[in-house]
Amino acid sequence: MAATLDGGLTLDGILVVDLTHVLAGPFATMHLAQMGARVIKVEQPGRGDEARGFAPFRDGQSLYFASVNAGKESIALDLRVAADRLVFEGLLARADVLAENFRPGTLAGLGYEWPELHHRYPRLIYGSITGFGSEGPDADRAAYDIVLQAMGGLMSMLGPAGSAPIRSPMQIADLTAGLYLAHGIVAALYQRERTKQGSRVDISMLDCQAAFMCTHLTTALATGALPERTATRHPWIAPYEAFAASDGWLIVGAPNDQLFARLCEVIEQSQLADAPLFRTNELRVKHRDELAALIGAVLRGRPLAEWILRLDAQGVPCAPVQSVMELARNSSIVHRAMLRKLPTPAGPLHVVGSPLGAGFCGESSAPPGLDRDRAAILALAAAAG
Amino acid sequence: MAATLDGGLTLDGILVVDLTHVLAGPFATMHLAQMGARVIKVEQPGRGDEARGFAPFRDGQSLYFASVNAGKESIALDLRVAADRLVFEGLLARADVLAENFRPGTLAGLGYEWPELHHRYPRLIYGSITGFGSEGPDADRAAYDIVLQAMGGLMSMLGPAGSAPIRSPMQIADLTAGLYLAHGIVAALYQRERTKQGSRVDISMLDCQAAFMCTHLTTALATGALPERTATRHPWIAPYEAFAASDGWLIVGAPNDQLFARLCEVIEQSQLADAPLFRTNELRVKHRDELAALIGAVLRGRPLAEWILRLDAQGVPCAPVQSVMELARNSSIVHRAMLRKLPTPAGPLHVVGSPLGAGFCGESSAPPGLDRDRAAILALAAAAG
Repeated sequence: MAATLDGGLTLDGILVVDLTHVLAGPFATMHLAQMGARVIKVEQPGRGDEARGFAPFRDGQSLYFASVNAGKESIALDLRVAADRLVFEGLLARADVLAENFRPGTLAGLGYEWPELHHRYPRLIYGSITGFGSEGPDADRAAYDIVLQAMGGLMSMLGPAGSAPIRSPMQIADLTAGLYLAHGIVAALYQRERTKQGSRVDISMLDCQAAFMCTHLTTALATGALPERTATRHPWIAPYEAFAASDGWLIVGAPNDQLFARLCEVIEQSQLADAPLFRTNELRVKHRDELAALIGAVLRGRPLAEWILRLDAQGVPCAPVQSVMELARNSSIVHRAMLRKLPTPAGPLHVVGSPLGAGFCGESSAPPGLDRDRAAILALAAAAG
Repeated sequence: MAATLDGGLTLDGILVVDLTHVLAGPFATMHLAQMGARVIKVEQPGRGDEARGFAPFRDGQSLYFASVNAGKESIALDLRVAADRLVFEGLLARADVLAENFRPGTLAGLGYEWPELHHRYPRLIYGSITGFGSEGPDADRAAYDIVLQAMGGLMSMLGPAGSAPIRSPMQIADLTAGLYLAHGIVAALYQRERTKQGSRVDISMLDCQAAFMCTHLTTALATGALPERTATRHPWIAPYEAFAASDGWLIVGAPNDQLFARLCEVIEQSQLADAPLFRTNELRVKHRDELAALIGAVLRGRPLAEWILRLDAQGVPCAPVQSVMELARNSSIVHRAMLRKLPTPAGPLHVVGSPLGAGFCGESSAPPGLDRDRAAILALAAAAG
């Protein structure tokens, strides 16, 4: 790739001082580590990143922690203790980026407010994730992923009609905020090339949920109508939903008349394509219950793999509903090496690679034990001081 | 903000030639436009971006289209016609970025393959989104959001135990891919400062789903156990779920003993905190059905707003399950100006701002009508040629 003509990764030479914990923040700095930045986790002595204590474990290694902390280094520092503050400030003097996801005001309470940081380290970029922004009316509210899924509108829309709330177990509020922080930090690095100044990236998880609700917000505010819960169905396309095969679930989507006609052929119900109830997408949406019943009655008679083969052969959009394990073994995931097997003290573990791929990102290394890299990091901090 | 000391936005001066359509691609270039890039939509004559035809409409304006295309320009070009190709190539000669989300091979079929593009325009960054990567075993499979939610594992986990599949109506597969493309393009711009070379950003929607499944993939592959469907519940924390108040749903989370004790006080059931069944989080997870029944019986007796006030006063993590409209009116969203009211030919419409905020992003303008900016764009292309 042209991108690596000079043999370097995107963030080679960039130093990140990483105060993040649990998921949103570590997911952000995972992306920076994948792109070649040196990411130093500064952790509370004794316990470290709270996620180190999250089950399940393998040989004492939290799998949750391992999943987002590969390729990083660790030092334990108590930021209330003078000697440790000196080390921390030695690191900041060298750093390009400081990242954290404490509650608002935590870092300022330790004497590291942004105006002060910016004055002392003018090239330092300071990125944070909070639930509702670093200040403002809800700044003190606890910012768990489930809280943001509830307040961000997602939970009000998920599920079949009349459903009780459902949480996305893909931690969408934490992860979007983490990705926006990584994106904002790279944007700030690019901006710094011109301005020669670091800047502040102040990510609110609720803002990120709003950004991901873009189509629904514009539509609801213009029409006054709220999106309805429709399980898998699309509000304006039919058929476009999940059906049960004899041995599992599949998705079938036929968003136009040609694809609907081909679907009808595959299920050997060609007469449906011209039936007065189903002739156009508008009619199919109107009579979607009847349509789904007719299609469903055929699909449930044969196995998933057979339907996927037959639908694929006709170019009808379809997909199996895959488990996490089937995702891991999916041929495209394997082909693109999206899962990396890392040797760790707890044996080999798989972690995700970067969707940006080899032009930008490199190999990874085992998630660090608490304080694992103390000597090298102390040397770095002293060299800078 | 220090970031705007020189009065500029992050991507001021950057030109994006934007062949994207529907959602994933336009969401990516929306982020570039918000950061100040000049984004020129190159659309098919006649129909334009397919999303222009998506209901609901206001005065002929698709609200879906409007939600992700503010701040962009539009020209209609037929890339199979020589004169239009000349205009397109005039734009490429000036452009920093070319973005598209066609099926794999479409742009190559028009004579614009990456090696050729890179040879002719060495500083050009080429970003694409496909379902499964630009080549590989599933490259030809249709890449609707619902297909990727099904294949990416999310759909297998969403919902209560035994549930039929549920789709996230927040189009999580399209939107994560769009955000990764924006992130990758900014990374490529930063990299170009050093290499002086453009590069290729080849985003696979399935890779993006895998990245967002990071904790579940590492855990499932190490333990062999699949995540269970648990509606809103957390697998390892209780209580941490939705409860019905007398007039709506709320989330309550008490991940440790202190918060659980405070929750018990709020619901006037202090004896629960020391009950043998519920004394530790481990016990609470084991007896979560009994616990949820006891808490739920109290919570359903009073209105949502009252519980939120009382739980907030004790610092117990909680949240209302908000509709999209309540999200729009949320005090933090208003405080941070995350929704922008744009004057458009179809009257004022609201669109989302950027979570990166004012240090990086500027004001927006109305989504373009098809071919609206033809004259200015032709002049730009000719000036470059």
